[in-house]
Amino acid sequence: MERVTGRYYIETPLAVEKAAQVLVGEQSSGTFVAVPGETEELKSRFAARVESIELLESVTEPAIPGLKANGSLYHRANIEVSWSVENFGYNLPTLISTLQGNLYELTQFTGLKLMDIQLPDNFSNYYRGPKFGIEGCRTLTGVQGRPLIGTIIKPSIGLTPQQTAGLVKTLAEAGIDFVKDDELMSSSANSGFEDRVDAIMQVINAHADKTGKKVMYAFNISDELDSMLRRYEYILNAGGTCAMLSLNSVGLSGVKKICDQGALVIHGHRNGWGMLNRHPLLGIEFPAYQKLWRLSGVDQIHVNGIQNKFWESDDSVVRSIEACLKPLTNGTTVLPVVSSGQWGGQAFETYRRAQTVDLLYMAGGGIMAHPDGPTGGVIALQQAWKGAVEGLTLEQAALQYPEFGNSVKKFGKA
Amino acid sequence: MERVTGRYYIETPLAVEKAAQVLVGEQSSGTFVAVPGETEELKSRFAARVESIELLESVTEPAIPGLKANGSLYHRANIEVSWSVENFGYNLPTLISTLQGNLYELTQFTGLKLMDIQLPDNFSNYYRGPKFGIEGCRTLTGVQGRPLIGTIIKPSIGLTPQQTAGLVKTLAEAGIDFVKDDELMSSSANSGFEDRVDAIMQVINAHADKTGKKVMYAFNISDELDSMLRRYEYILNAGGTCAMLSLNSVGLSGVKKICDQGALVIHGHRNGWGMLNRHPLLGIEFPAYQKLWRLSGVDQIHVNGIQNKFWESDDSVVRSIEACLKPLTNGTTVLPVVSSGQWGGQAFETYRRAQTVDLLYMAGGGIMAHPDGPTGGVIALQQAWKGAVEGLTLEQAALQYPEFGNSVKKFGKA
Repeated sequence: MERVTGRYYIETPLAVEKAAQVLVGEQSSGTFVAVPGETEELKSRFAARVESIELLESVTEPAIPGLKANGSLYHRANIEVSWSVENFGYNLPTLISTLQGNLYELTQFTGLKLMDIQLPDNFSNYYRGPKFGIEGCRTLTGVQGRPLIGTIIKPSIGLTPQQTAGLVKTLAEAGIDFVKDDELMSSSANSGFEDRVDAIMQVINAHADKTGKKVMYAFNISDELDSMLRRYEYILNAGGTCAMLSLNSVGLSGVKKICDQGALVIHGHRNGWGMLNRHPLLGIEFPAYQKLWRLSGVDQIHVNGIQNKFWESDDSVVRSIEACLKPLTNGTTVLPVVSSGQWGGQAFETYRRAQTVDLLYMAGGGIMAHPDGPTGGVIALQQAWKGAVEGLTLEQAALQYPEFGNSVKKFGKA
Repeated sequence: MERVTGRYYIETPLAVEKAAQVLVGEQSSGTFVAVPGETEELKSRFAARVESIELLESVTEPAIPGLKANGSLYHRANIEVSWSVENFGYNLPTLISTLQGNLYELTQFTGLKLMDIQLPDNFSNYYRGPKFGIEGCRTLTGVQGRPLIGTIIKPSIGLTPQQTAGLVKTLAEAGIDFVKDDELMSSSANSGFEDRVDAIMQVINAHADKTGKKVMYAFNISDELDSMLRRYEYILNAGGTCAMLSLNSVGLSGVKKICDQGALVIHGHRNGWGMLNRHPLLGIEFPAYQKLWRLSGVDQIHVNGIQNKFWESDDSVVRSIEACLKPLTNGTTVLPVVSSGQWGGQAFETYRRAQTVDLLYMAGGGIMAHPDGPTGGVIALQQAWKGAVEGLTLEQAALQYPEFGNSVKKFGKA
C-alpha cells in the first residue's frame, strides 16, 4: 500500500528514537495507555512508521517550551515518518490533521517543524492540481520568455473603484501584465466588490479590445463560501481572468472548492504565513506548504522576494521558488509570485540564484512611486529583467536603460 | 464608525511606538514608500490606529529571528491596534488577513502574538454564532448539572465499523453522554464513513428507543466541501446529532458553511493548534482564536485539560475555559471540550479552578482501559465530578466511590 511521508526537523530531551516513537503512536493508533482492540495486525496496517533518523547537533537550551532535559541536552534530528494512504484515503484535511495535527502538542518535543512531504504517485489520479499554472498564465497574458510583471494597488485600501480603475488604465497603457487587490481589500465601504470589478474590467476590456493584450487582474474574493462563489461568477461574467484567495484565512476546503470551478486563474496569497514558519523549530516550511495548496489547485503562490522588506532570508526565498518549479501531480506547475519591497534592482540576484524567468514579479511602491510615474515603473521592471537575463550587472543595466537607471537613483541602496 | 481591536504581545529592537506605527502602516494603507493617492483624508478613514501601548521588560536576545538590535535591547510590550469595520465589512477571512496577516512577516518585530480581539456589538447582527452551544448540547443529551462525559474511539484508527459500534454499545449502556471519532479517522480503508455511521447509529438509536437517552456521536466529516455536506446529510438522515470538524485543516470558510446548515451540533477540534500557539511570542492565543470559530458557529471547541499529556500549562487551560464561557454574539455560548490524558483525577483541580460544570469532559484511555472495563470507566468519571462538586478531595472521593477508587489505583500518580 502506498504511503505518505513527512520529513520533520525536531528537537527533544529524550533519545531521538524514543521521541519518534511517541510521535508515531500519537499520530496513528496510540493513546496514553494500552487499550483493548489494539492488535498487532491492526498496528502493522494502520500505524505510522519511523522511516529514518538523522541525528544533528545537541543544544543546552530548548527551542520552545516542553519537557525539561533535567541537566542533559536537547537533541536535534531530521526524522521521516510515513503513513499508509489506507488511513485517510484522498482527503486533504485529514491528511493535514495527520501530518500537522496534535503532534505539535507533544511535550516530548521542544521543537518540531514539517519540512517536506512526499506523496504517492497515484495522488495525481485524484488531484488535478493547478488548472492553469505557469503556461496558462503566460497564455492568458501573452507573456513569453520573461517574468510576468505585476503590481499591487496601493494605497492598499481606501481608493474608490473609479480611482482604482484610473490606476489600472495607467498601468495597462504602460504595459503591465498583472495587477492585484491588496489582501486587506475585498469589499470596503467606499469600494464595493462588484463596483470595483465593473470599473476595472471596463478599463481592462477596452484596453484588450484596442491592443489585444488583456491585463490579468486578481480580484480578492476571500470571504465566506457562497460570497466567494458569487464573486467568482461576477468576475467571470465581466470578462476577468483571475481571482485571489488569502489561503490561510479562507482555509483549504474553501480554497479547493473555488479552484475546482476551473474557469479562473487562482492567485494564492499566503498572508499569515509568518505565524506558521517564522520560528526555525516550529511550524512548517514552504516546500511542504506549497504542495498542499498545489494539490488544491492554486495556480500562483507567493514566495516573498530577494532582499525583501520582511524578515525572510534570501536563501529561504530561493528554496521556495525552487519548490514551486519542481513538478508535482501530472506535471502541473505553479507560478511563484515574487513580491515585497521589489523595485527591479533585485532582478539580477533573483535570476542569478533561481535561474528562471517563470515568475510573477510584483512591485508595489517600486512601480507607483517611480520618478517617471507608473509608466516608467513598469518599463524599468521590464528593463531590469532584460538586463538580468542578458547577463548585465545592475550597474551596467542602469547605464544602458534610462527608466531602470532612474529606479536605481530613487530606490537603489548603493 | 465601529472598530475591531486586536491586542498583541510584541517584541522589537525599535522604540515600541515606532514599531507599532510600522504595523499599522503595513496593515492598512501603507507600502515602503509614499505613493500618490495616499491622502490624509483617506488615511484617517481607513488607517489602522495604535490605541494603547503598555511597555513591559526588555531582553538581550530576540525571541524569533528579525531585525538585530545592534547591541541594544529588545523591548516587549502589549499594544492595541484598531481597524474600522469599513475596511472589511462582515467578512471573516478578510478580518483574519487584517488581524493576523502580513504583520507576522515584519522584520521590525522579533516577537508578535495576537492575544485577544474586541469586536463591535453589531457583529451579533451578522453572525448567529453557535446554533446549539452549551444549552443545546445539554438538551440533546439530557445532561443537566454536571459535565457531559465523553470519550474518543481508541485505537484512533483501524477498527471496523462493527467493532466501533460494539464499543459504542458498551459505552452507551455504561451511561456515556458523548463519543467521538479521532481526528485521524474520517473514512479509512476498513471503516468507510457511511458504513460507520450506519453501524453506530443503529446502536445509538436502539439505545435511545429503549432508554430515551440518545448518545451524541461526533462523526468526523472533515474533508473537501462537497464531501462534508454529503456526510452531514448522511448523519442527519441516520438520526445523528453531531458532526466533527478539524478546524485548522478544513479552514474557516468551509467550517462556516457547514455550521450554517444549522441542523447538527458542530464539534470543533483544534488539532494543529500547537503550530499557532506553542511559542510564547509567536502566533495567536486561545481567547482570540476561539472568538473566530464561535463567530463561524462552532458549538464545542477543544481546550486541552488540566494536567494534560501535552505541553500546555494548567494556567493556559483555565484561561481557555474562561474564554469559552464569556458571552460573545447574542449571548451565545460554546461548550469547552476538556481532553488529553484525562481520567477523572483532574476533575477536582478543574472544578476548583474553573468553577464550572459547563464542560464536555473527555477521557480516552481513562475510560477504555479502566480496570472494571469501559462501564467502570464511565461510572468513575461521573463519580469524580460528583465528588469534585460536593467538595471532596480526590482521596475522599476515591474512598467513597469504588469505581473511581479503582481509577485512582490504576491512573493516579500519587
